[in-house]
Amino acid sequence: MIPDDPIIAVIGAGAVGGYYGARLIEHGHRVHLFTPSDCGHIRKAGMRVRSRDGDFVLEPGRVNVHDDPREMPKADLVIVTLKTTANHRLKELVEPVVKADSVILTLQNGLGNEEILGQLFGAERVLGGMAFVCINRTGPGEISHTDHGLIRIGEVRGGPSARAGKIAELFSSSKVPCEVLDDLTFGRWDKLIWNVPFNGLGAALNLTTDRIIESEAGLSLVRGIMGEVIAACRPLNIRFDLGVPEEKIRHTQTMGAYKTSMQVDRQMGRALEIEAIIGKPLAVARVNGVVTPLLKMLYDLVRLVDVPSKTASV
Amino acid sequence: MIPDDPIIAVIGAGAVGGYYGARLIEHGHRVHLFTPSDCGHIRKAGMRVRSRDGDFVLEPGRVNVHDDPREMPKADLVIVTLKTTANHRLKELVEPVVKADSVILTLQNGLGNEEILGQLFGAERVLGGMAFVCINRTGPGEISHTDHGLIRIGEVRGGPSARAGKIAELFSSSKVPCEVLDDLTFGRWDKLIWNVPFNGLGAALNLTTDRIIESEAGLSLVRGIMGEVIAACRPLNIRFDLGVPEEKIRHTQTMGAYKTSMQVDRQMGRALEIEAIIGKPLAVARVNGVVTPLLKMLYDLVRLVDVPSKTASV
Repeated sequence: MIPDDPIIAVIGAGAVGGYYGARLIEHGHRVHLFTPSDCGHIRKAGMRVRSRDGDFVLEPGRVNVHDDPREMPKADLVIVTLKTTANHRLKELVEPVVKADSVILTLQNGLGNEEILGQLFGAERVLGGMAFVCINRTGPGEISHTDHGLIRIGEVRGGPSARAGKIAELFSSSKVPCEVLDDLTFGRWDKLIWNVPFNGLGAALNLTTDRIIESEAGLSLVRGIMGEVIAACRPLNIRFDLGVPEEKIRHTQTMGAYKTSMQVDRQMGRALEIEAIIGKPLAVARVNGVVTPLLKMLYDLVRLVDVPSKTASV
Repeated sequence: MIPDDPIIAVIGAGAVGGYYGARLIEHGHRVHLFTPSDCGHIRKAGMRVRSRDGDFVLEPGRVNVHDDPREMPKADLVIVTLKTTANHRLKELVEPVVKADSVILTLQNGLGNEEILGQLFGAERVLGGMAFVCINRTGPGEISHTDHGLIRIGEVRGGPSARAGKIAELFSSSKVPCEVLDDLTFGRWDKLIWNVPFNGLGAALNLTTDRIIESEAGLSLVRGIMGEVIAACRPLNIRFDLGVPEEKIRHTQTMGAYKTSMQVDRQMGRALEIEAIIGKPLAVARVNGVVTPLLKMLYDLVRLVDVPSKTASV
């Protein structure tokens, strides 16, 4: 069980982990951030958050920040916000902060993260969740939160639990709206309906979300891809209302010229989260015999722009 | 009939028209170039061509260059090398140089150009052709020709003609290899097999040809799209050997980090030749009931990156 004043470890405090970690610190929680890239800067200069829910600054002394998880205390709650492209390092990075009764919450993108963490640390201690937030890291220790912000969390199997409620309360009392899901798998696919087209097209075409939805061609692509994601999970008995795609497109309209994380990764020359966001849904479609030509083409397109250089390709 | 020392007008002397026009001038032909963007510069500084078939310079006095077709002489041979995105200006730009016995050769990209010129000036005087050449305009009056170079020309209907032979002879004796086609429609589609994937993906993903063919994902996309172009023209009784896609991929390997014209147009913020290169083949597939999901998705992708700004979209 998670104690009332838990020690919280955030593994991978980039944009998402950095923002939520900073909100928890701002509200007096005992948080340790693992962020090797920004560690030195944050120790000297603290963190600056520009947020549509209120800007704030964390002075250097207020942030426990680490570049080596082995120097971190064991945590009651481990929040994993690593890029899924670093999932081969999950054991090495998470194990040092895990103790017998730690609860692990992954807020990573896409499919497959709970399974990997469950295999490494025991399925019974893993919860999953999704961050519905427009957020970018604008510099070391600097975060810009421009729209939305909701977290949805849930048990891998079964409905709401006491510990999920406790985590939701931690977030909700720290200016981060958080809901407990009845069905995490539904939630994951619900988020994929948005993530697959906008991350995929954003990275492949190097376009912001507003450019994608401003033309008939873009809307046609988004609708087509959303339809295939919805079809892909139907054999899992996950069903969405007919109006879901248009609803998600409407929610995109308030985001402005938003760069999805995958577009940012492409621009920064970083590895793209292709497998978790596009590869795994495509694999689910295939294994169930669902025909998804747009998804397959999108998968090839993002893999193609992901090749960083000739030397990196086989 | 084309006389032995014809007056030649090149309408739209960008990369392709500029290179071929310059080669004809170099070899003593009476050529008039219409190129409003480079006219002033060429009048002062002439033209510089870097070519894998030999560099050369044309001094200012040697190039007849115009920014208004109404100031050009009537031509025996009119070579049209305008971007197809300017096809709505064909009447205005070509009519001034046409006389009763002018022959018009379009070397423009994709499908539909012979038909438009035929409607405007009479189908009997129009020939079509394709330039198989890696060429970029590197500055005003400056052209870089890096690979290939062949022109293939033909009558819109019927096989080789005397006038096609005469035009081929003009080019071939000016260091531009030129073949006369037995079947122009076959030749057009043969070129589309390459142009659709490499122009489409190059523009959508902003990738050079080497990046597209260096990965399995890229080759899978290229092969898939080529297969759909080949399927699209089958109802027209145009058939290609099974080995054609691999042969074209092999020919791409010598091109290096080549930017297709459509990728250059995207980078320069110019309108993309989407309809001639992708939209018309897709329309042929549709009207004949050929299912081409990759072609449709590619069409949407390039239309999406073609939207120059919010104000330009409806």
